[in-house]
Amino acid sequence: MSLRAEILESPAAVERLLATAVDPLTRLAEEVRRREIDTAFIAARGTSDHAATYAQYVLGIRNELAVGLATPSVQSLYGARPRVGGALVIGISQSGRSPDVVEVIASAREQGALTLALTNELDSPLAEAAFACVSLEAGPELAVAASKTYVTELAAIALFSDLLRGAAASSQLTALPEALQRAVDGEPAVEQVAHARAGLTDCAVIARGYHYATAREWALKLKEIARVQTDPYSAADFEHGPITLVEAGYQVLAIAARGPTLGGLRSLLERLRSDGATLLVASDDLATRRLGDHALVLDEAVPEWLSPMVGIVTCQLFAYHLAIARGLDPDAPRHLDKVTLTR
Amino acid sequence: MSLRAEILESPAAVERLLATAVDPLTRLAEEVRRREIDTAFIAARGTSDHAATYAQYVLGIRNELAVGLATPSVQSLYGARPRVGGALVIGISQSGRSPDVVEVIASAREQGALTLALTNELDSPLAEAAFACVSLEAGPELAVAASKTYVTELAAIALFSDLLRGAAASSQLTALPEALQRAVDGEPAVEQVAHARAGLTDCAVIARGYHYATAREWALKLKEIARVQTDPYSAADFEHGPITLVEAGYQVLAIAARGPTLGGLRSLLERLRSDGATLLVASDDLATRRLGDHALVLDEAVPEWLSPMVGIVTCQLFAYHLAIARGLDPDAPRHLDKVTLTR
Repeated sequence: MSLRAEILESPAAVERLLATAVDPLTRLAEEVRRREIDTAFIAARGTSDHAATYAQYVLGIRNELAVGLATPSVQSLYGARPRVGGALVIGISQSGRSPDVVEVIASAREQGALTLALTNELDSPLAEAAFACVSLEAGPELAVAASKTYVTELAAIALFSDLLRGAAASSQLTALPEALQRAVDGEPAVEQVAHARAGLTDCAVIARGYHYATAREWALKLKEIARVQTDPYSAADFEHGPITLVEAGYQVLAIAARGPTLGGLRSLLERLRSDGATLLVASDDLATRRLGDHALVLDEAVPEWLSPMVGIVTCQLFAYHLAIARGLDPDAPRHLDKVTLTR
Repeated sequence: MSLRAEILESPAAVERLLATAVDPLTRLAEEVRRREIDTAFIAARGTSDHAATYAQYVLGIRNELAVGLATPSVQSLYGARPRVGGALVIGISQSGRSPDVVEVIASAREQGALTLALTNELDSPLAEAAFACVSLEAGPELAVAASKTYVTELAAIALFSDLLRGAAASSQLTALPEALQRAVDGEPAVEQVAHARAGLTDCAVIARGYHYATAREWALKLKEIARVQTDPYSAADFEHGPITLVEAGYQVLAIAARGPTLGGLRSLLERLRSDGATLLVASDDLATRRLGDHALVLDEAVPEWLSPMVGIVTCQLFAYHLAIARGLDPDAPRHLDKVTLTR
C-alpha cells in the first residue's frame, strides 16, 4: 500500500475509531473523574509525540488538565522512576513496541497511576502494559511515514476530551469524517501548490496553540518524505531567537487557524513578509491566506480545536506531492524502518 | 559589554549564585517536602526553555519528580487554567518580563501551587508573582544572545536538586566554578575547531538525556550568533524519522558525555559516519571524540549531571568563533531585541 493510499484512508479510519473507542474512553473518563485526576503525562516518539503535543492543548484548554510530555530516557536509561502515581499516564505508539514508551507505562501502572495506551496494534507490549487501551483502527499502516495513524491518534484524544466533558462525542467531532473527506477531495489544489513550490529545500514551519502540533508533524513529514531541511516552531519561540535567520528569500510555512492565536500570527507573518521572507500560509481565513505567496485552504467549517486533524491531511498531501515534484519516491525514505525500537 | 565578555563571566556568576541562592532554595525544598509535592511544571521561552529541559532530567533522575513543560498559550491566549494547585510551578526568564510566563506563575499561585521564579531581574513582574524567587546573580546581560544567564539558570536548578536531597550543595556542585573556568580557559582550542568548520551552514545537533538541553541551546546559539540553519534532536527522536535526511556530507554536531546514554549515542554516530555524515563530536570520552571529523573536549572531571553547564560554555564559544570565522558580528544578530514580550 502506498503512502498516498493510506493518507486517503483517514476519513474511514477516523469513522471506525469514533465508533469503537467510545467504550474504553468512557470508562477511562469516569475513572479520571472518580480519582479527581488533574495531571497527565504522555510518553511517545516521533509522529506520536506530536499527537502528545496536540493533547497538551486539547486536554489543557478544554479540560483544564495539566499535561506534560514525559522524558522516557529518565526511566529507560537512567533508571529513575518519577512519581506519577496520582496522574493519568498515556503511551502513544503506532506499533506499541517502542521499549522506552512501554517502560514508562509499565512503571506508572506499578505506581498506581491510571494508564492508557493508544496504539494500532492491540497485540503489543504497550497494549498489554496499560490499564485501558484504545485501538486506533487505522488498519495496517505499511508506508514508513505515518499518516492515518496520526489522524486517528488525534481523533482518540479529541474524543477523550469530549467524554471528559460530557457523556458523548460532540456533534463537532462526529462531523469530522466528512470534513476529512473534504480535505482529501481538495488534493488537486494542494498538488498544484506543491508543484509551484518544488524548489523548497529549507524552511521554518510556524504555528501556535492547537496547530503547534501540526507544525511539528508537517515538518517531520517534509523531512521524511520530501527531504526538506526544516524546523518547527511555536511562533512565540520563533520570536525569541530563530527569527534572526530571516532574510530575503527565507522560506516560512505557517499554519494559522481562526481563534485566539490568529492575531499574533498575522502580525508575525506581516513582519516576516516585510523582512523579505517567502510565505506559504495554510489557513481557514481568507485575509490571512492573502499574506502568503502561496496558500493552502483549511476548512472554514471545522472548529479550531479539531482543525489540526483535518489540516494535517492537507499538509501530508502537500509533502507527498512535493516529493513527487522533486523526483523523490515518497514511499521509500532512506535509512528508515517502519518500527524504530529506541531504549 | 560584548557577548564574549559575558560568556567569560560564567564562572564568577555561578559562584555568586551558589552563595546567594542557598537560602531561598532551602526554604523551597522544605516546602516541597512538607507538601509532599511530586509534580513540577515549568514555563519558559527561548534559552530559558532549555534550562527547563535540563530541569526535566535533573529533577526527574535525581529527585524523581515528574516534570512537565507548560504550554503558556493555553492560559495566556485560550484563557484556560490547567489545575496545577498541587504542583511546584517554576517560571524561568532572564528579564522576568515575558507576559505569558508571568501569567502561568500568577495563576498557579492563585490556585495554591508552590511557585518559584528564576530571573536575573528581582525587580520584575515574574519575581513579584512567585512565592519564592532566586536571583540569577549574572550581572547585566546586554548581548542579545543569552549566555551566562543560561549557565546560572542551570546552576540554580542543580542546587535545588541537591537541596531536595540533603541539607547542602554537593561537593560536585561547589567545584563547578573551577570547572567553568577550565572551560573558559579552553577557548583557543575551541576557536581553532570553529575556524576549521567555518563552512558550517546547515547541521543537526544531537544528544540525549541531560545533554538534550545542551543540544537545544547549542542549536539556538548557532542560529542566533552564527546564522547556522540547524535543528536539535534527542538521539531517539532523530532515529524516528529525521535520520532520513542523512547523506554524504550531511553535518551532525553531537554532545555525548559518559553515562547511560553514551553507548546508544556511539552506535548512532557510527551509523551516521558509515552513511557519510560529517561529525563534530563534543565529548569527555576520547574514543567517542575519535568518531568525529573534529572534536571538542568536555571536562572529564565533571559528572554527567553537571556536564551541561560546563559543556554549554564550550558550545557558546564555538558559536561565537564560528560567527567570527564567517565574518558575522556575534554581538548584532538581526531582528532581535534583548527582551521579547510574547503573550
